[in-house]
Amino acid sequence: MKIAVDAMGGDHAPKEIVLGVMKAVAQYKDIEILLFGDETKINEYLTDKTRVKIIHTDEKIESDDEPVRAVKRKKKASMVLAAQAVKDGEADACISAGNTGALMSTGLFVIGRIKGIDRPALAPTLPTVTGKGFVMLDLGANAEAKPEHLLQFGLMGSVYAEKVRKIDRPRVALLNIGTEETKGNDLTKKSFELMKNQDAYEFIGNIEARDLLMDVADVVVTDGFTGNMVLKSIEGTGAAFLSMLKMSLLNGFKNKVAASFLKKDLMELKAKMDYSEYGGACLFGVQAPVVKAHGSSNANGIFTTIRQVREMVEKQVVETIKAEVDKVKVGGTEAND
Amino acid sequence: MKIAVDAMGGDHAPKEIVLGVMKAVAQYKDIEILLFGDETKINEYLTDKTRVKIIHTDEKIESDDEPVRAVKRKKKASMVLAAQAVKDGEADACISAGNTGALMSTGLFVIGRIKGIDRPALAPTLPTVTGKGFVMLDLGANAEAKPEHLLQFGLMGSVYAEKVRKIDRPRVALLNIGTEETKGNDLTKKSFELMKNQDAYEFIGNIEARDLLMDVADVVVTDGFTGNMVLKSIEGTGAAFLSMLKMSLLNGFKNKVAASFLKKDLMELKAKMDYSEYGGACLFGVQAPVVKAHGSSNANGIFTTIRQVREMVEKQVVETIKAEVDKVKVGGTEAND
Repeated sequence: MKIAVDAMGGDHAPKEIVLGVMKAVAQYKDIEILLFGDETKINEYLTDKTRVKIIHTDEKIESDDEPVRAVKRKKKASMVLAAQAVKDGEADACISAGNTGALMSTGLFVIGRIKGIDRPALAPTLPTVTGKGFVMLDLGANAEAKPEHLLQFGLMGSVYAEKVRKIDRPRVALLNIGTEETKGNDLTKKSFELMKNQDAYEFIGNIEARDLLMDVADVVVTDGFTGNMVLKSIEGTGAAFLSMLKMSLLNGFKNKVAASFLKKDLMELKAKMDYSEYGGACLFGVQAPVVKAHGSSNANGIFTTIRQVREMVEKQVVETIKAEVDKVKVGGTEAND
Repeated sequence: MKIAVDAMGGDHAPKEIVLGVMKAVAQYKDIEILLFGDETKINEYLTDKTRVKIIHTDEKIESDDEPVRAVKRKKKASMVLAAQAVKDGEADACISAGNTGALMSTGLFVIGRIKGIDRPALAPTLPTVTGKGFVMLDLGANAEAKPEHLLQFGLMGSVYAEKVRKIDRPRVALLNIGTEETKGNDLTKKSFELMKNQDAYEFIGNIEARDLLMDVADVVVTDGFTGNMVLKSIEGTGAAFLSMLKMSLLNGFKNKVAASFLKKDLMELKAKMDYSEYGGACLFGVQAPVVKAHGSSNANGIFTTIRQVREMVEKQVVETIKAEVDKVKVGGTEAND
């Protein structure tokens, strides 16, 4: 199995990317890595070239580049070349910790959409209080969505949860402003109707945002605008909470002593809310596994993402989606499919 | 000033409602309370009738009643009669801790909309890390919204923040999935354009959900669907975090001892995230102040809400909105205005 890796994307590239790649190659003997980026810089950290091939390029997409334009203009960017290798059949999947929007555009324009899936969706796995976690999509690949898109998101999330997260008959829920069938806006009402009337996956109905972290579903479907809002609300609240907790704990000598006793547990608490341990966010709906590693990924984050992608290739996630996509076909899907 | 209070709404009605009313009447000599509900039950707790008048009714709206239907059928419900008193000029404002949807319907159908405001909006004041807080609207009065509605929400939130929260020239922001002007869905893009081109209030541009609790704005405008999602995400994350923190703190003897030292500070942390201290959620856009107290309000929560409503009447929040509504009139507003 060959995995194309963008060595130049992310806050700690190329160092942590290269270190993560070496760790993955050492652990999994069945993978080969194609590493795209600045050869000189990569070689500073690459101490073992076993099953690692460098494809040199000077060009890269910056984190603040305008995504669509960058992908069109920087045809030799490390991220674009990694995707091109997948398109050309030289690699089975690709990974980048770089510009999220650019990776979505690259996946869509270079690798291409699965026939029958109208819109790709970005899907991270988020933490829950028990540590089980859940897949949520779309988290921002599309600002506008139609009911048939959400119907398809359910299928893609379900296939992933079953194959990679090893959940038998995953519970797929629709994120809504109430649990009753009649609740919501036009999009959620129509999506509910479509999801209720399919049998490609296990639809359990609406769930509310306040229950997201409570293990109420394995896959949560929403439009990209709402998903992005909800994800950032969760992140922002977690960060605000931690900062206030920190202020409390450093408030006076007595508290500092007490805090020192609790340090290990509080670090664990913080780690529990850090969802990079579940791997990166998948771009579902394109012709091969494309995964966005967290921008702040260290070597371990990259290793985890490679492990995740390896699992996606091995368990044929994309092939399964292709095979089942007809089950979620409705009259409303687009003409070009 | 006369304030109509629904004595029968909320988890702890009528006891805590009545106790809160007595506290408010004792504190503010310029208010009179009209208390709507079961006279016998109210009298169990009403030990001082100074400036309190009971209007008896057997009927009440339950928390699980379907809002619109309940308001239409239960014409003698305590909540509906309280609103009717405002409509008839017998009271200046009304308060309920009962069914939120029913109170919104009551406000809209019984008291009526302000001419020039197309949709009412539900607006709580939410906490921030510094304790300053911000007004957010709409939090669910409408599942669907148009750009001109968001433009108007900005005005209503700004008037309230200035008059009641005493913030000079409040910073009004649009909640979006990115800070750049070009980000978002069709609704946010068009709303941004309208808000940028008005001078009724201080529009500071887009803010992201992750910064909500960080004091980046005084008024945050969004559609009711997104607002509801974001509010519940914040609440759910806070609750999940507290439950995990509690588990950590009770994990072994050493932690329990340390936790006992921190107890006071952790209670303060929890209190900081409890936004009932800012009063209830205002239903803006109707002809008089209508405020939804938290369903779980105790006497103090009701007292705080009465204080808030008193301020709204005294500072002429509704009159100011009426006087300024023409400044946010666009071609797209509805024909019946």
